[in-house]
Amino acid sequence: MPVRNATEDDLDEICAMVKELADFEESGDEVDLDPEDLRRHVFGPDPAAHVLIAHPAGDPGTVAGMALWFRTYSTWVGRPGVWLEDLFVRPAHRRAGLARELLDALAARTDGRVEWAVLDWNRGAIDFYDGLGAKPVEGWTRYRWLPGSAG
Amino acid sequence: MPVRNATEDDLDEICAMVKELADFEESGDEVDLDPEDLRRHVFGPDPAAHVLIAHPAGDPGTVAGMALWFRTYSTWVGRPGVWLEDLFVRPAHRRAGLARELLDALAARTDGRVEWAVLDWNRGAIDFYDGLGAKPVEGWTRYRWLPGSAG
Repeated sequence: MPVRNATEDDLDEICAMVKELADFEESGDEVDLDPEDLRRHVFGPDPAAHVLIAHPAGDPGTVAGMALWFRTYSTWVGRPGVWLEDLFVRPAHRRAGLARELLDALAARTDGRVEWAVLDWNRGAIDFYDGLGAKPVEGWTRYRWLPGSAG
Repeated sequence: MPVRNATEDDLDEICAMVKELADFEESGDEVDLDPEDLRRHVFGPDPAAHVLIAHPAGDPGTVAGMALWFRTYSTWVGRPGVWLEDLFVRPAHRRAGLARELLDALAARTDGRVEWAVLDWNRGAIDFYDGLGAKPVEGWTRYRWLPGSAG
């Protein structure tokens, strides 16, 4: 299997890929990630997030991509699901099925929903998600609040 | 304080409010929630979600509303946040500030983002969120995948 759970030895590669993905999303300067914070939040005693690492087939020494995810819960479905926060395959390793391998590995971790958000201009990703059978969530608007930012 | 963490004694009220909220959202028939599953997922050893309960001022024997939430994680912010899955105040207890009390109690549980989704036609809720200083997340589309639902 080219996908495995990350270990603390992957910390530098994970941080690098967070930045590479944010740069691709034209938001590199919005990343405010301290590696020691990531270590605590992913590899500490009460992890807030989890990471899957993808390798090229037959090359376990090379990190080709990752999926960073956390558990969700839906009262309608009545069970936990998965939120895919970051899905990234490095450019040199694309078109080899690794994004699908990462998503299938995530799917194996829940019997609920798998959800994520995609940038509206990221046509390549949207075509891939549509091909999976994933559906855009319509009729709802996501809101974000940084408490203290206004009254 | 009219807001407290839920206990197992609140299970029936929580299930009732999940249904009341879904009915308000015209989706009551989409709810597939087993109370024993909810007990395990909220009050078990590794909770997937958490619940805050609101009472009317001076009336701790009456359940007026709730916030059901779970922890999130953002690689850009670099720390955990909160997803508010269900926010509900029963009709008889509205316009008394309880939704704001619930949101403030949630905000006290994170130094990251507080996020949620609102139905586009729920004008009353949207006005309330705008008044808080919360912002719609624009430029991203949420996707949902029920693995196995398509190839």
